[in-house]
Amino acid sequence: MSETPEGAGAGARRGRRGGGGAAARRAARQGGGITQLRHITRRIPTYEPLDEDGLALIEDNAETILQEIGIEFRGDPEALAIWKDAGAEVDGERVRFPRGLCRKLIATAPAEFTQHARNPERNVRIGGRNMVFAPVYGPPFVRDLEGGRRYATLEDFQNFVKLAYMTPAMHHSGGTVCEPVDVPVNKRHLDMVYSHLRYSDKPFMGSVTAPERAEDSVALAKIAFGADFVDNNTVLVNLINVNSPMTFDGTMLGALKAYARANQAVIVTPFILSGAMAPVSVAGTLAQALAEALAGLAFTQLVRPGVPMIFGLFSSSLSMQSGAPTFGSPEPNLVLFAAAQLARRLELPFRSGGALCAAKLPDAQAAYESVQSMMPAVLGGVNFVLHGAGWLEGGLVSSYEKFVMDADQLGNLQVFCNGYDLSENGQALDAIREVGPGQHFLGCAHTQANFETAFYRSTISDNNSFEQWQAEGSLDTAQRANVLWKKMLADYEAPPLDPAIDAALLEFIAKKKASMPDAFA
Amino acid sequence: MSETPEGAGAGARRGRRGGGGAAARRAARQGGGITQLRHITRRIPTYEPLDEDGLALIEDNAETILQEIGIEFRGDPEALAIWKDAGAEVDGERVRFPRGLCRKLIATAPAEFTQHARNPERNVRIGGRNMVFAPVYGPPFVRDLEGGRRYATLEDFQNFVKLAYMTPAMHHSGGTVCEPVDVPVNKRHLDMVYSHLRYSDKPFMGSVTAPERAEDSVALAKIAFGADFVDNNTVLVNLINVNSPMTFDGTMLGALKAYARANQAVIVTPFILSGAMAPVSVAGTLAQALAEALAGLAFTQLVRPGVPMIFGLFSSSLSMQSGAPTFGSPEPNLVLFAAAQLARRLELPFRSGGALCAAKLPDAQAAYESVQSMMPAVLGGVNFVLHGAGWLEGGLVSSYEKFVMDADQLGNLQVFCNGYDLSENGQALDAIREVGPGQHFLGCAHTQANFETAFYRSTISDNNSFEQWQAEGSLDTAQRANVLWKKMLADYEAPPLDPAIDAALLEFIAKKKASMPDAFA
Repeated sequence: MSETPEGAGAGARRGRRGGGGAAARRAARQGGGITQLRHITRRIPTYEPLDEDGLALIEDNAETILQEIGIEFRGDPEALAIWKDAGAEVDGERVRFPRGLCRKLIATAPAEFTQHARNPERNVRIGGRNMVFAPVYGPPFVRDLEGGRRYATLEDFQNFVKLAYMTPAMHHSGGTVCEPVDVPVNKRHLDMVYSHLRYSDKPFMGSVTAPERAEDSVALAKIAFGADFVDNNTVLVNLINVNSPMTFDGTMLGALKAYARANQAVIVTPFILSGAMAPVSVAGTLAQALAEALAGLAFTQLVRPGVPMIFGLFSSSLSMQSGAPTFGSPEPNLVLFAAAQLARRLELPFRSGGALCAAKLPDAQAAYESVQSMMPAVLGGVNFVLHGAGWLEGGLVSSYEKFVMDADQLGNLQVFCNGYDLSENGQALDAIREVGPGQHFLGCAHTQANFETAFYRSTISDNNSFEQWQAEGSLDTAQRANVLWKKMLADYEAPPLDPAIDAALLEFIAKKKASMPDAFA
Repeated sequence: MSETPEGAGAGARRGRRGGGGAAARRAARQGGGITQLRHITRRIPTYEPLDEDGLALIEDNAETILQEIGIEFRGDPEALAIWKDAGAEVDGERVRFPRGLCRKLIATAPAEFTQHARNPERNVRIGGRNMVFAPVYGPPFVRDLEGGRRYATLEDFQNFVKLAYMTPAMHHSGGTVCEPVDVPVNKRHLDMVYSHLRYSDKPFMGSVTAPERAEDSVALAKIAFGADFVDNNTVLVNLINVNSPMTFDGTMLGALKAYARANQAVIVTPFILSGAMAPVSVAGTLAQALAEALAGLAFTQLVRPGVPMIFGLFSSSLSMQSGAPTFGSPEPNLVLFAAAQLARRLELPFRSGGALCAAKLPDAQAAYESVQSMMPAVLGGVNFVLHGAGWLEGGLVSSYEKFVMDADQLGNLQVFCNGYDLSENGQALDAIREVGPGQHFLGCAHTQANFETAFYRSTISDNNSFEQWQAEGSLDTAQRANVLWKKMLADYEAPPLDPAIDAALLEFIAKKKASMPDAFA
């Protein structure tokens, strides 16, 4: 497929912004004094805990599952016909695959690709050494300190788009940052896509809840980016979940086909709570997830060879006591690291991770579990980190306070990914010579020259003395986060959007909405 | 030095417990239904983000610091004489080292060693693929939900020893779990060592606040373990901090010499807040810390060749805004990973990490920062993790609630270190065959056979539904932790201690206390 170099996407074609250094830096600064960060290009290695024998064993078991048990492709006769033509054995809705077939089919996919944003400064590169952070996806509820837990609205949706826009280390606007349940279910995708285009200029995700909603997402993208551009470039990345174990349903297959045919990227994601949708073991979960991903990814290439796609995995364990999902636990972390290795062996981008937790409040549990999910994603080399901020209560709630807490972690982790500065300035031998034994470095020339950028500066941690913290009201982290997200929304300024494009988007949406009655289920 | 195999230490020699399987399992169970875990022997690789060129550069810079700038050994003429004899250049209290001298001297130290506990089931192996978790060290204050923040007492000290004892993944009783400031400063070391021996049977740390207190710690250990055994085995591990930059003071040198001469282990620990005690850069901090550690470790081997020792590093950054230390930030994590690599190249055990944070409360900040410190310690292969639980407010406070929250993380991380089960049961192919597409694994034979041990079970996380959590009082994590630590103390049963040994310890302490007036500064 066609790939446009960084900084030369849709916006540049329409001459909105230049690509030069100073201009780029000016363009990067925006409302609220934010200097946006580009997506991460890792300068640290990946952590690879599973050895060659272990990886080969998992791959062999996945082929056994594909060959012997097979995968169900439900409610989509066309999919079955496609598989039959490709040489698979089709029995009812069950498809069984000769060993190696899926692996061979996915070879046509790119190892990495650019997702274009309407502001080319915000284009992201997905795959390889690159890493993209995206916000929480899917919750029907929101929570904040004053309002408590309540159903999400379109206003909440727009707020989370704005918060993602105002977060420098959030490289992506995401998709369903929360479900705007005050909008009819058959129309809300239009408002969601519009909100991403109107209130942010970062890349975003399309609707997957029905094939026609996927087509609407593509149509809106064509208005914003131009039809030719969308035909030849990736402007939407779209979340296709597997109904684990070993089942794709008609809705997801329909959306998958719609996006693949439009040359837009799909994330094929086994959604697994081990113990329910997969065995209660790490190696069993890995083999099944790999089999499911291979089948869905190969199918995507059959629909349109060369279309960009991402090997996804959402992995959690079921509490065998409560029957509820658990997060930040060691077994899913072992799954994540090994799955990232398996994806790299397939030369495909990998999606997993996120600031996941089962906590009901943005408290210590939320934070323990979130870092326990995010740090493995970063060290494991996940390329597309969905749920990077805001996720609460097993994904049922988008939390305003947790969003800005997690956003601080994203900034922290982005610095970590920059690795070691071994320049002369980084080595600082002259500073050590200048200061000498028993003295302090606070006033030395090297410190003076470097202190502003030397260390990551947390937006949420209180490092002051106990007395100072007391004098400032003894606020806990959630209370400080409450102040911060309100300030971010108050400081928010929308990025510019061509009024003609805005009008065309609104016209399309109005016509679509008028063409069908509201549906709420 | 003499090394006794695991499980055949002091207790076995005195016939306290057998070494057999069933007997060992019985012995491992104790009050409160706890099944203690042995220290970790990693089955996962270490994460090594700094490459060979970078490591060689840091090592070269450390040698430049040692040769050109040197290290001060203050208030200890004997130390200067020792260095002069060893071939270093002594100028006043400044010691400069020919390149390679320190590295050559430390070659006599063991790469790993056993620290013996009075219950040999609790012996720990320090170094190599082994990892030991120890509690918080040093805070003058304690905090709990009801009592708030207050000066620590001996009762608090005993409580934290008991909590460490009741924590399965806490392999060590630690040292100054808090400062019992109600006991005179010149006598409290006696009560601290006694508390470790009386209320726990896990290994522990000696006093380092004065040479004579180190000698008292050794004398008490000889009563508990037998004098010959202590002469020939490590029963105390002792924290010797460097006064960074590049200075050892007389107190620490005195304690170091006392322990080394008694054949007890020392942890030589550069204590660095980058920006104050070292440059504001990662590579500068690393070179200086390596130089300091090399000088202190080499000195230890000069005092007694072959004495076990640990390369330590406490690394944090100074907030350039508030002047206070920050924790869980990316720069100290980069320092930690590389320092662990440097220690492995020296074939020495490494100490760092801990559940560090600047938070004033056991809230989200505390948890974010603690995991951001603990996970690098675990993935980086730190052998002795001090401050594994309970640390709050930059080390000023031992928190009851945070202790049990962090303790849960230790259990989580210990499971992670076990790595991948690739047995047939772990692969679970038969379970996948049995269940098949679209079904669930809850009732299948493999799940039934494995569910009790399949997943780490958090002691503190609430994974229940929102409704269930609400029905149970909508408790946040700190409130649940409050219930848990009280239950642990209520369930606590002291491990058996030979009454004759107990009487001898108390007699030694009474005599010592009577021999000097109380001092409070």
